[in-house]
Amino acid sequence: MKHFRQKELEQMPSRFRAHLINSCTGYKSANLLGTISKKGVTNLAVFNSVVHIGSNPPMLGFILRPLTVKRNTYSNFKETGYFTVNQVNKEIITDAHHTAAKYEEDVSEFSKTNLTESYLDDFAAPYVAQSTIKLGCRYLNEYEIKENGCLLIIGQIEHIYLPEDLIHADGWVQLDKAESIATIGLDGYALPTLLDRLAYPKPNEATKSLL
Amino acid sequence: MKHFRQKELEQMPSRFRAHLINSCTGYKSANLLGTISKKGVTNLAVFNSVVHIGSNPPMLGFILRPLTVKRNTYSNFKETGYFTVNQVNKEIITDAHHTAAKYEEDVSEFSKTNLTESYLDDFAAPYVAQSTIKLGCRYLNEYEIKENGCLLIIGQIEHIYLPEDLIHADGWVQLDKAESIATIGLDGYALPTLLDRLAYPKPNEATKSLL
Repeated sequence: MKHFRQKELEQMPSRFRAHLINSCTGYKSANLLGTISKKGVTNLAVFNSVVHIGSNPPMLGFILRPLTVKRNTYSNFKETGYFTVNQVNKEIITDAHHTAAKYEEDVSEFSKTNLTESYLDDFAAPYVAQSTIKLGCRYLNEYEIKENGCLLIIGQIEHIYLPEDLIHADGWVQLDKAESIATIGLDGYALPTLLDRLAYPKPNEATKSLL
Repeated sequence: MKHFRQKELEQMPSRFRAHLINSCTGYKSANLLGTISKKGVTNLAVFNSVVHIGSNPPMLGFILRPLTVKRNTYSNFKETGYFTVNQVNKEIITDAHHTAAKYEEDVSEFSKTNLTESYLDDFAAPYVAQSTIKLGCRYLNEYEIKENGCLLIIGQIEHIYLPEDLIHADGWVQLDKAESIATIGLDGYALPTLLDRLAYPKPNEATKSLL
């Protein structure tokens, strides 16, 4: 068993620490955030930090790194009020990852990958046609994390598009049927297989499978 | 393709919406948070909302539901200043899920599962012996999400324990070797298999595999 203490974490090379800390907290989601500027330049960026905030109203959050450099995703949803969240599946890993390359502000990541803009129901931000599960979100608020200047962005989910056969009778979405991807750290892409669904747990009763 | 609009999301049955919204944003991590009260009662609770906040200093965050009912995890790390984050693997899914059952405050979830308390290097909170990857964290701060009363808790990672053979030369941790679990929504547990690791992407260059 390897043990890293605080002092060792402080003193290790910065890239080693970044990989270690990003990956040791477990699998994360892989989503492409789609936005468009007032001038009409689209942007696409991969995020692994989307979290559930609440279901009534439906809200999600994600972490944005400090605004010390210009973040097109941020400036776009601040201008328009809207962004899309497009789930990464097995077929689009490489293109999704490529959206993290540093292109100039007037270059759309859509033009540098095989991913295609899709506009649905007059929503004010582009979806990714190749994503199986797509969410249309309205920007609600942001919270600055004073410890390092990151922002927690809160959005309300206003539209959900997904294949009907993924949705169970109780609303649960079987992501492995969509070949959705889970990420490890900054650059690892893994394909999960469902093992089990477990019933709501009750004290002093054995937990049952729902499958 | 099924399309849920905002009005349909508002009007659907509450449990259906909870399952749908929790699962449609993608796979999440599965971690057991271990704490102990000043009186010495341990607590263990499963969380799927751990996110990366920063690597220098190493920080993670997680979302805690509103404090309208007593949350033992919260009161414990506020009392002691410390908590542990223990990754859920394939072998402990059922016990991890069972920690969400509503036990009285003086009952430790360790006593109601096969999970075992482990105290390492005099850290002030219990680890889970059966977890392959264990983090010791110090509570730093909390941010109230005004939209629904949830809290974003920020902790600094002070200790990391994990098997040495999971760690690549550049610090990246291969979670599938530990049989770490990814979750779908409130009750789905999936086992990921690594597909690829991709090099840092550069503009106008094809993205390369690191494997």
